Amino acid sequence: MSAKILLLPGDGIGPEVVEQAAAVLRRAADRFAIDIELSEADLGGIAIDRHGDAYPPATQQAAREADAVLMGSVGGPKWDGLPAPDRPEKGLLRIRADLDLFGNLRPALLYPQLAAASSLKAELVAGLDIMIVRELTGGIYFGEPRGIHRLENGEREGYNTYRYSEREIERIARLAFDTARRRDNRVCSVDKANVLEVTMLWREVVERVASEYSDVELSHMYVDNAAMQLVREPKQFDVIVTGNLFGDILSDTAAMLTGSIGMLPSASLDANSKGLYEPVHGSAPDIAGQGKANPLATILSVAMLLRYSLGRSEAADAIETAVSAVLDRGLRTGDIASPGGVVVTTQQMGEAVVESI
Amino acid sequence: MSAKILLLPGDGIGPEVVEQAAAVLRRAADRFAIDIELSEADLGGIAIDRHGDAYPPATQQAAREADAVLMGSVGGPKWDGLPAPDRPEKGLLRIRADLDLFGNLRPALLYPQLAAASSLKAELVAGLDIMIVRELTGGIYFGEPRGIHRLENGEREGYNTYRYSEREIERIARLAFDTARRRDNRVCSVDKANVLEVTMLWREVVERVASEYSDVELSHMYVDNAAMQLVREPKQFDVIVTGNLFGDILSDTAAMLTGSIGMLPSASLDANSKGLYEPVHGSAPDIAGQGKANPLATILSVAMLLRYSLGRSEAADAIETAVSAVLDRGLRTGDIASPGGVVVTTQQMGEAVVESI
Ligand SMILES: CC(C)[C@H](C(=O)O)[C@@H](O)C(=O)O
Ligand SMILES: CC(C)[C@H](C(=O)O)[C@@H](O)C(=O)O
Repeated sequence: MSAKILLLPGDGIGPEVVEQAAAVLRRAADRFAIDIELSEADLGGIAIDRHGDAYPPATQQAAREADAVLMGSVGGPKWDGLPAPDRPEKGLLRIRADLDLFGNLRPALLYPQLAAASSLKAELVAGLDIMIVRELTGGIYFGEPRGIHRLENGEREGYNTYRYSEREIERIARLAFDTARRRDNRVCSVDKANVLEVTMLWREVVERVASEYSDVELSHMYVDNAAMQLVREPKQFDVIVTGNLFGDILSDTAAMLTGSIGMLPSASLDANSKGLYEPVHGSAPDIAGQGKANPLATILSVAMLLRYSLGRSEAADAIETAVSAVLDRGLRTGDIASPGGVVVTTQQMGEAVVESI
Repeated sequence: MSAKILLLPGDGIGPEVVEQAAAVLRRAADRFAIDIELSEADLGGIAIDRHGDAYPPATQQAAREADAVLMGSVGGPKWDGLPAPDRPEKGLLRIRADLDLFGNLRPALLYPQLAAASSLKAELVAGLDIMIVRELTGGIYFGEPRGIHRLENGEREGYNTYRYSEREIERIARLAFDTARRRDNRVCSVDKANVLEVTMLWREVVERVASEYSDVELSHMYVDNAAMQLVREPKQFDVIVTGNLFGDILSDTAAMLTGSIGMLPSASLDANSKGLYEPVHGSAPDIAGQGKANPLATILSVAMLLRYSLGRSEAADAIETAVSAVLDRGLRTGDIASPGGVVVTTQQMGEAVVESI
């Protein structure tokens, strides 16, 4: 039976980078005799334009039937005027919830070839390799009640609810501990348990799950301190596990430490290793359609897809090795270029990776 | 009439740094003929030990009667086992609420003498001067309902509520715009308006207030992007205004960019410029009582106290100039020492500042 892969190119540079990543996927599938079937659907702004819905029924059906989803990026100034519930980003939040993709893995990895790109001093980030495990379908992103209402005194008030149940915390904690076992066996759980009750429960449940993983070292950090420690001494971390909102903030901080956010992939997994894979970077509307975008984050997302959803790590390794090889050859898109380097187009970069596999 | 200043030395290194800062305050008051009256009370862990309450009635009364409060720091491992509502930090949250100290000003300023201490590349932080304006008495820190309860299916759930009313947003926005007028006339408001309704209202109200400040430039940033931009290019910011939780995270990130958190003061103001002043750093129990603590953040908090609550900016300027002078002379506590520098004690540093005023 062939594995069904759904492509969601999305907006901005999404279609360009997904095109290259799909070519890499096809090449890896050929080379490692993986039976795949690709299809495509609309998500985000393009889906609003074509179907009046950021996550239209046809996309929903295709996403539910797929074994894995490869996404580009969604959003752009064109849709910024829309009310929030109708915006492209809502399509992304809806597909995460619909597919129950609670486990978001965001590696922050510094490629030695790109060490100079970091805004941090080289010795602080050389060899950086953090994995952020972010809960993706709960917390304040989805908590009810929420809205804007009028108070008795006539003024308006906005409100959101930050919730986590034991079960939600347990499953993301397990994912973090399992992930740490394949790495350096250390988990740092980030919360604000000195102020927020919901994160007191978080801490308690993470401790309980930790007792099943006596080979993994667990530490706790308040979110303000974690943000500081990421800037001060990022290499102290192995796996960081945290809720949806803190994970949003900390994973972007960690990504930026590498100085090359155009290189970073991500995976969002359900309980059965079905996943949605996407680059960490956004839709970059300012350079869309110009062949300037870096396809490597999406290409590396294909590697994650092969590893986590299809269980084909030899193919994942081959893609990662190929990416490293093209970097070694000095190929760079504009975002990671250094003085005197060769700047290539999105397509040239994609083709170079295909050839290296 | 003399100005009533309440000292709250607190825990850990708090008493040591407040002692030096109080000496600096007395010296500045002498030199500039400012009539002050100092008193002292317990807050935090020491108040729990002595009175069984992190913010006991006597401290409440003294704080309400004071014109300004100078705090050291609260908390430490000794009290970490207590349930959250009884912990030292709760004393800090209660005094903030009790005195209605909604406006938290946290400068992130890089002293040229200490530029090497930053973990960022020198050119990215040289001359860094950001002011974070954090809302301090609302948002998810104080929102009700909150707690941990049992769901119908038997499992427990933790929950907190993130709330802001128009009035709360308006007053912190005004403080930010007023602050920007004394600086570079730029305000960046940080929210997560693409996901959270409460911050949609935040954005709307900040826009409305901005229309009264046509000389100040307003921009908006999502919190994940703001965290990234702080690491990527911190000098792009002048004033950042945001809610309680995002402000907690971003102000610590910004502080850490300077590499010298032992240098950073803060002010928490009510609507009438009464304020509580404290260093950004914590109680550092590991070095408490050893004369190793850096008193400069607390000394610089005295400068803020003189400027904001007593309206005596000439005295504030004199303290800031004196701090710069002792740094120029090469005096350093351990936390900001560089190879070959002179390391002095907490007291020696304090005395050097006193002498320079
Ligand atoms: C676009 C936005 C809703 C989204 C999020 O906050 O989750 C993005 O920032 C991300 O991290 O994938
Ligand atoms: C101690 C803690 C409650 C406090 C906060 O989160 O406000 C601290 O981190 C701060 O920023 O002053």
